Amino acid sequence: MIIVPEKEIAALLGRAEAFEAVESVFAAMSSGVAYNFPVIREAIGHADALYGFKSGFDRSSLALGLKSGGYWPGNADKGLTNHQSTVFLFDADTGKAKAVVGGNLLTALRTAAASAVSIKHLARKHAKVLGMIGAGHQSAFQMRAAVEQRSFEKVIGWNLHPEMLSRLEETAAELDLPFEAVDLDRLGAEADVIISITSSFDPILKVSQVTPGTHLACMGTDTKGKQEVEAELVAKATVFTDQVAQSSTIGECQYAVASGLISESDINEIGAVINGNHKGRTSVDEITLFDGTGVGLQDLAVASKVVDLAVEKGIAISVDF
Amino acid sequence: MIIVPEKEIAALLGRAEAFEAVESVFAAMSSGVAYNFPVIREAIGHADALYGFKSGFDRSSLALGLKSGGYWPGNADKGLTNHQSTVFLFDADTGKAKAVVGGNLLTALRTAAASAVSIKHLARKHAKVLGMIGAGHQSAFQMRAAVEQRSFEKVIGWNLHPEMLSRLEETAAELDLPFEAVDLDRLGAEADVIISITSSFDPILKVSQVTPGTHLACMGTDTKGKQEVEAELVAKATVFTDQVAQSSTIGECQYAVASGLISESDINEIGAVINGNHKGRTSVDEITLFDGTGVGLQDLAVASKVVDLAVEKGIAISVDF
Repeated sequence: MIIVPEKEIAALLGRAEAFEAVESVFAAMSSGVAYNFPVIREAIGHADALYGFKSGFDRSSLALGLKSGGYWPGNADKGLTNHQSTVFLFDADTGKAKAVVGGNLLTALRTAAASAVSIKHLARKHAKVLGMIGAGHQSAFQMRAAVEQRSFEKVIGWNLHPEMLSRLEETAAELDLPFEAVDLDRLGAEADVIISITSSFDPILKVSQVTPGTHLACMGTDTKGKQEVEAELVAKATVFTDQVAQSSTIGECQYAVASGLISESDINEIGAVINGNHKGRTSVDEITLFDGTGVGLQDLAVASKVVDLAVEKGIAISVDF
Repeated sequence: MIIVPEKEIAALLGRAEAFEAVESVFAAMSSGVAYNFPVIREAIGHADALYGFKSGFDRSSLALGLKSGGYWPGNADKGLTNHQSTVFLFDADTGKAKAVVGGNLLTALRTAAASAVSIKHLARKHAKVLGMIGAGHQSAFQMRAAVEQRSFEKVIGWNLHPEMLSRLEETAAELDLPFEAVDLDRLGAEADVIISITSSFDPILKVSQVTPGTHLACMGTDTKGKQEVEAELVAKATVFTDQVAQSSTIGECQYAVASGLISESDINEIGAVINGNHKGRTSVDEITLFDGTGVGLQDLAVASKVVDLAVEKGIAISVDF
């Protein structure tokens, strides 16, 4: 069994590898060779924790296993990340445990890669202004991955707590891009691409604020009850997602589907665009929206890549298990 | 993170420790401090494998995690066990991965412990004859654990393929007990305690074959469609189980419930007997039946014990994860 500790991940997996792994597995999901198993998510009644599993199998890469962990709100006080996760990979030919991989940075990288994949395939070619909604820990990862897909000239951002906007400003500076804090009206009016990455339970962005041609990547909604944009905006956009069943129930599309504004059949797989089975954006005025719900296969894809790289570079810990 | 490889388990965990761990967790389940999460079980479409997870959390012991693995029918040809599983434990206070433990022998021990717990609490005190239905790999484990609960003087057994009965004969000899191969009429007539441990999809034992006062432990049925005894026998017996929701849907009680012979409320938790909240057997003529469906908390309980023992004995592999 191979062990790759959390502290080794940063030196092993870059954004390019994460992007490629996530793009490939979205394609495999859409072509039917990879599928996710049902998600388990439990409030365990201890330490206010949410714990569970995301899992799946990719018959093309033979990636099999799960990511397990969850959210422990008291961790920060102990000097630990609140989100804790570990990826366990299995040998698809024998069922033996194959690898244990630290999953915290991987989760950040695969989530950022997902919105970047959506930008590559759905945003207008000449997008210049990137709008960020949300300035938490994950926002920096989303921004870094996004700017590699288009020649952005500026980042604008909004956050419920303005004092946190410094994260966006610093990340933009690191990327040699000017940053401006704006209100939601300006954000919607000026951004060509908008990434939302919040824990909001109320719609933040309104349909009236978004201009034709915008691409939105809604990355924060992964639970029943969460919502980042008005359901009317979802209904107005051409909608894509990683997995339709999650999008319509726990993703950004849940309200639009529940209220009858759209049906599941209106939600398209991003994998179909990658595979060439869906045209994606068809005009410069179309609003496209990617609902990134997060699937276990993304975790397995990046963890498998990490294991290959760790073995190749001789830093994998091997245990006779 | 602590690693305890499969090959170390035999020297670490005996039947006594497995028994105690399983008895305690059945009690914790019944008192509501421990619960199992939904089971994931998938035919992955590769190597004819069934793969999945059993998981849960025990708030009293703080055991949190899952057993993952499954059934790979082609493994035997590769010199591997067809059933492969690994237990992953998490720190309930932080969500960090805590231990990875080989789960193959543990599964055998915890399954054997479950029927032994049922014999302790439900069989007549002076039971003398142990009847075994099934002679596969697991049957030896069940027999060894069972004979520690009563002063059995003889083992009798039946198997669909009589040529496999040598396993039961050899195991009985190892335990200094005489063994006799019998037909099902004699098995039902003579045995005081009957353990069934098969992969049958048709009822083997009939209600007409079983005598008053018998305790049955039906351990083989863990999937929709499997069945070891007639539904009428389930209906005639006072029925106990590890977890009612599994018993009525994927356990031995599934047919009796589906046909309306019994309802879920007729199925009692073995943990209630352990806790003193159910009397268990109330007469020497009563037929008692334990439906052992197998729950994730059993796996977590024995794996937690293994980790404690491995650390104590200095043979745990510690990885800075």
